[in-house]
Amino acid sequence: MTLLDTINSPKDLKKIPLSQLPQVCDEIRSFLLHTLSQTGGHLASNLGTVEMIVALHYVFDSPKDHFIWDVGHQTYTHKILTGRKNKLHTVRQFEGMSGFPKREESKHDHYNAGHAGTSISQAIGEAVAKKISGLKTGNIISVIGDASIASGMAFEAINHGGHLKIPFLVILNDNEMSISKNVGSLSYVLTSMINTSFYKSWRQKWTSCIHRLPIVGPVFERIMLRFRSSMKSIITEHQFFEELGFRYLGPLDGHNVVKMVHMLHRLENLDQPTILHLITKKGKGYEPAEVDPIKFHGVSPFEKTTGATRQNDNGKWPLSEFVGQSLSAMAGKDKKICVITPAMGEGSGLTEFEKLFPDRFFDTGIAEQHATTFAGALANSGLKPFLCIYSTFLQRGFDQLIHDIALMNLPVKLVIDRAGIVGGDGETHHGLYDISFLSGIPNLTLLSASTAQELMQMLEFMKNFDSGPIAVRFAKMSAPKELFTEWATSTRKSNTSKTATIKSEILLTGKVAVLIAEGVMVKNALEAAEILAAKKISLEVVSLRTIKPLDLKTLRKSIANKKFVFTIENHVASGGTGFYIQNTLSKELTNKTFTAFSYPDEFIEHGGINELQHKFGLDAKSIAASIEKTIKHKLKK
Amino acid sequence: MTLLDTINSPKDLKKIPLSQLPQVCDEIRSFLLHTLSQTGGHLASNLGTVEMIVALHYVFDSPKDHFIWDVGHQTYTHKILTGRKNKLHTVRQFEGMSGFPKREESKHDHYNAGHAGTSISQAIGEAVAKKISGLKTGNIISVIGDASIASGMAFEAINHGGHLKIPFLVILNDNEMSISKNVGSLSYVLTSMINTSFYKSWRQKWTSCIHRLPIVGPVFERIMLRFRSSMKSIITEHQFFEELGFRYLGPLDGHNVVKMVHMLHRLENLDQPTILHLITKKGKGYEPAEVDPIKFHGVSPFEKTTGATRQNDNGKWPLSEFVGQSLSAMAGKDKKICVITPAMGEGSGLTEFEKLFPDRFFDTGIAEQHATTFAGALANSGLKPFLCIYSTFLQRGFDQLIHDIALMNLPVKLVIDRAGIVGGDGETHHGLYDISFLSGIPNLTLLSASTAQELMQMLEFMKNFDSGPIAVRFAKMSAPKELFTEWATSTRKSNTSKTATIKSEILLTGKVAVLIAEGVMVKNALEAAEILAAKKISLEVVSLRTIKPLDLKTLRKSIANKKFVFTIENHVASGGTGFYIQNTLSKELTNKTFTAFSYPDEFIEHGGINELQHKFGLDAKSIAASIEKTIKHKLKK
Repeated sequence: MTLLDTINSPKDLKKIPLSQLPQVCDEIRSFLLHTLSQTGGHLASNLGTVEMIVALHYVFDSPKDHFIWDVGHQTYTHKILTGRKNKLHTVRQFEGMSGFPKREESKHDHYNAGHAGTSISQAIGEAVAKKISGLKTGNIISVIGDASIASGMAFEAINHGGHLKIPFLVILNDNEMSISKNVGSLSYVLTSMINTSFYKSWRQKWTSCIHRLPIVGPVFERIMLRFRSSMKSIITEHQFFEELGFRYLGPLDGHNVVKMVHMLHRLENLDQPTILHLITKKGKGYEPAEVDPIKFHGVSPFEKTTGATRQNDNGKWPLSEFVGQSLSAMAGKDKKICVITPAMGEGSGLTEFEKLFPDRFFDTGIAEQHATTFAGALANSGLKPFLCIYSTFLQRGFDQLIHDIALMNLPVKLVIDRAGIVGGDGETHHGLYDISFLSGIPNLTLLSASTAQELMQMLEFMKNFDSGPIAVRFAKMSAPKELFTEWATSTRKSNTSKTATIKSEILLTGKVAVLIAEGVMVKNALEAAEILAAKKISLEVVSLRTIKPLDLKTLRKSIANKKFVFTIENHVASGGTGFYIQNTLSKELTNKTFTAFSYPDEFIEHGGINELQHKFGLDAKSIAASIEKTIKHKLKK
Repeated sequence: MTLLDTINSPKDLKKIPLSQLPQVCDEIRSFLLHTLSQTGGHLASNLGTVEMIVALHYVFDSPKDHFIWDVGHQTYTHKILTGRKNKLHTVRQFEGMSGFPKREESKHDHYNAGHAGTSISQAIGEAVAKKISGLKTGNIISVIGDASIASGMAFEAINHGGHLKIPFLVILNDNEMSISKNVGSLSYVLTSMINTSFYKSWRQKWTSCIHRLPIVGPVFERIMLRFRSSMKSIITEHQFFEELGFRYLGPLDGHNVVKMVHMLHRLENLDQPTILHLITKKGKGYEPAEVDPIKFHGVSPFEKTTGATRQNDNGKWPLSEFVGQSLSAMAGKDKKICVITPAMGEGSGLTEFEKLFPDRFFDTGIAEQHATTFAGALANSGLKPFLCIYSTFLQRGFDQLIHDIALMNLPVKLVIDRAGIVGGDGETHHGLYDISFLSGIPNLTLLSASTAQELMQMLEFMKNFDSGPIAVRFAKMSAPKELFTEWATSTRKSNTSKTATIKSEILLTGKVAVLIAEGVMVKNALEAAEILAAKKISLEVVSLRTIKPLDLKTLRKSIANKKFVFTIENHVASGGTGFYIQNTLSKELTNKTFTAFSYPDEFIEHGGINELQHKFGLDAKSIAASIEKTIKHKLKK
C-alpha cells in the first residue's frame, strides 16, 4: 500500500507527516507517468507541478481557499488530490475527465479554463467580492506560468491589482519554457533578475567607483559584502512587481516541497497583493521529457522506458504540418513572405520555417492582440504576412482584426488552424465561432479548406491576393505526407488557374437534393451521398471552399433544379455558413426545403472528433439518415 | 500675416527659425481654440500636443519618416501642418475632415486609428519590414499616451519590441490624465519614477547605512552627491523600460518646443528601441480646459472667453446618463450591485455612481480583456456586476466573454453603450458588429433598448436575472431628463411584471406588412408607418426588444397574417437581427416577401447620425419609400 493509496482528498494529504511529502510526490509522479504513458495527455507540464500542487494542498484548505489555475492543463496533481485519481486514465477522452479545470467535475475547481492569462483577473474579482460582501472565502491563490503572465491581459490585471492593493496571492510557476520556448522580454526580465544581470551591471559600476577611493576602499568593500545581498533583493527581483504594487517573494525551488510548505505557511491571510516566484522544470523526474519537453507537452501514448511514441503516424501529417511545409517552400521563392505565431510555433507546424527563415519568423508569445496588429503593419509595409493562429485564440485578436487590418483593407493572410471541433482539449479550445465573428467584418475574404491539397492551393492563392485581408480556416485532421511532395512538384510544373481554387465545386452531381459542405464536412458529405446512393437517393455534393463572398454562380447552378437544399459545417448554427447561404440565396430557396446541419448553440465538451460528430448527428451515417427522413417526409405530403 | 499663414506643409515649417517656433505654437493654439470653439471636437488633448507635434515635424521628415499615432484624436496640429488647416472647421462633420488619422486624407497618415494601444505594434511591424525588405522608410515614431501604454496590447508590443531589439522611437505623451483619470499602476510607476519614490526609499536605506560608518561617513557623503545623480537615472526612470529592452530618455517638458527639437535631433537614426518620455498638460494654454480637461476632452461648441458650452442640453440626457442614474438608484437598495468600466467612466455616465459607491466602482483603465474576466469572477462570487462598455471596445473583450463568462454561464450584466452608428467619431467607433459577434455565443441573452424607459426597465430586469450572462445594447441618443424621475417613482410604487420588459411588443397594428424594428430604429419605424398611413398603406410596427432568444410567440403572431415582413436595425446586415429572424422563422416566412434594412457590409464614415441614416436609406422617409416600392412592385406582378 502506497501513501498515495491513502489519499482521496486534501484532508487525507494533510494527515501525512511533512517529512513524507517527498515520497507522496514521487508516487504521484510515477502514477502520472504510468497512466499518461497509456492514455496520452499534457505530461511535461504536469510532471513539473507535482511538488507545487502538493505543497499548496498541504498548506491551504481547498475548497474554502480558492486555487485559480491559469490555462489549467497543469492541474492533474490537483485532480488526483481532489478525488479524481481513479478518473485520470479517462483524461481528455469522450465522457471522461477533462484535461482542464472544470466546475462540473469538482467543488475544488472554481473556474473552467483553457486560455492563458485569466487567473489574475479572477483572483482580483474574488478578492474584491470577499471585501464587498464579507464572503468567507479563504485565501485566494492564482497559479500562473511564465508564458501566461507575459500576456497582455495578465499585465492589465497585475496593473489593476496593484492599484487596488487588495490581498491575494499569485504563484508564478516559472518553468523557463512556454509551449515552444521563452519569448519576449518579460520572460527575459524574470530570467535576468534571477541571473541578476541588472544587479551585476549595477555592481560593476559601483565597484569601479569604489576602487577609485584611496582610503575608504578596503573598509567599504567589507561593508559592501554585507550590504550587497540586501541591495540585490531590493533592486533586482523585487523591482518589477513591486513597482506594480505587489509584494514579491522568491525565487524559490519549485521542486523542494518541504521548503515550499514552510514558505506558503507564511503566506496565509495576506494583507496585500503578493507574488511568489517558483522555479520549476517541465518534465521533471522523467528524463525523456526533461530533455525534450516540447515533444512531451501534449503527448500521445508512449513507451515509458524509452519515451518512444507508441502510435505510428501512419505516414500522415497534421494539416498544420502541410501549412508549415508549404509556407517554407513558398518563402524560399518569395522573400516577402513572413510568418507570425502567438506562441504556437510547434502546434502550427512552423518549426522548420523558423529554422530556414529565422528573420521572417515571429513568435510574439501569448500576445494575440499585438500579433494581429503587428501583422497589419507588416502588410502595410509591403510584406506578405501569414498570421498562423488557432481559431479559438483568434478570438483574442478580434478587435485588432477589425480595427488594424480590415478597416484599412490590409492584405494580411490569416491561417486559421484548429477550426471546428478539436477533440481532447474540449470546450475551451473548439474553434466553433470563427465563421460567425469573421463574416460580419467588411473587406475580409474567408475560405475553408476541406483537404490538405485544397489548403496548400489556397495558401498559394492567398500569397498573391493583395486586394485585402484573406483567411482560410481548416480543421484538426491529418493527411498522407506524400500529398505535400505531389503538390510541390505540381506547382513547380505549372501555375494552374488560381481563382479556381476558391470557387465552390460540384464534386458529385445529383438530382433531388444537394448538400453544400464546408471544410472537413465535405468528406462526411461524400460518404453520406454513397450511403444514400445505395438507397436510390441521388444527392449532389458541393464543396463550398469560399464562405465570404459566396460563389453565387456555382451555388445557384446547383440549387436551381433541386427540391431539397442541405448545408453542413464544422461550426455552430448561429452565424454559420448554412444560415449565411439561406440569407444570401433566400430568393433562390423559395419553394425549396432548406436544412442546415451544424453544431448546436451550446458549449461542446471534449472527446474524439468522430465521437462528437456522431453525438451531434454530423457523421456520414447520421446525415444520410436525416436527409433520407426529410426527403421521404416531404414527398409523402 | 501670421507665421501659420505661411505654413501649408512640413517643408514650410522647417523654414521657420528655431527661435520662432514658440510663436508658431501660440498661433496654432489660438487657431485650434478659435475653430473648435465653433465646431466642437477633442480640444483638451489637442491643446496638449501642439509643441510636441511642431517639434516632431520640425526635426523629422514626414512622410518619409513615419509618425504612427495612437488613438489619434490628438493629431489636429499634425493635420494643420500637413495641408489640412483649411479643413479643420469641418472636423467630425458629415463629409468633413475625420477627427482621427485617416490614410484617405493624407500621405502623412499611415494608419487609420481610434482604439488605444495599437501604435507600438505598428511601429515594430514597420521596423521589421524595413529591415527585411531594405525599405527606405526613414525614422519610425510611435506617439502614445500614458493611458494607452498601460493597455495590455501595448505591453505585449513593448515586450516583443524589446526582444527584437529593432530600432524605433516611442514618444510617450504623458499628460498625467487618461480620458477620465489615471488608473492602474503603470501610470503610477511613471509618476513614481519621476517623483523618484523608489530612489528616495533606496536613498534612505543607503544613507542610514552610511551614517553608521564611523570614519568614512563624511568622505563618502561627498562622493555620494556626485554618484547619486547617475544612480538616480540608472535606477529609477530607466528601470522599467530598460528591463523590457528599451533605451529610456526623459522625462522632458513637452511644452518646451526648443528643448524637444534639440533632443529629437539626437534621436534620428536610432540603433535600438527607444522611448522618450514627455510630460504634457491637457488643455495647455486655455485655462478653462486646464482646470476641467474632462469637460473639454470631447467638447461641443463653446464660448471662448468663458468656456461655457453654447449648446443647450434642452433638458435632455444621453442614454448613458440614464444608465448611471438608474444603476445608482438600484445600487442604493442592492449592495451586490457593482459597476466596471474600462476607462470610460465619464462617457458611460458613471460619475455619480463613482462618488456614491466608490467601493463598488471599478475603472480598470484601458483594459477590456481584464475588465471582462474580472466581471466574470465578481459574478462567480455572488455579486451583480454591470460591465458598462462601448460596443466597439467590447470587441477587445470578446474572447473573455466567451471563455470566462458564457462558458460558465456566469450572470454578468453587459451594458453595451454606443451600439450602432455613433456619429462624429466615425469608422473606428461605430458599434455595428455586436449583434453579429454576440449572437453566436451560447448561453448569452441579448436585449436591445429603443428608449430611455425601456433601457431603465431592462437594467432593472437584468439586476435580478441570474440564469446566465445578459446584455443590453443601446444607441447614442438622448431623451428628456424627466423620464428618469418618472421611472424612479414608478419602480418605487410597483414591481410590475418584469418579463414583459423583454418581450417583443406590437406597437402599432397593421394589415399588409409588418416592420420589426431593433433599438433606436423603432422611432424611425413608427414615423415610417405614419408616412405610409397617409398613403393608405397599413404597416404594423413591432419593437423587437429581445434579440436572443427571439420572442417567437409575438413575432409569429405578428407575421402570421402579413404578406410582407420587413426588419430594420442599427447594425450591419451580416449576422444582424434581420437575418437571424429570417433563419429562425424561415418556415413562417414561406410565401412571404422578406426584406432586411440595415447598414451595408462596409466601413461607415463619420457624420451626423441622421445624415448617415439618410445616406444608407434607414431614415423614416427612405424606409417608407422602400416599403411602398416593395409592396407595389409585388402586388403589380
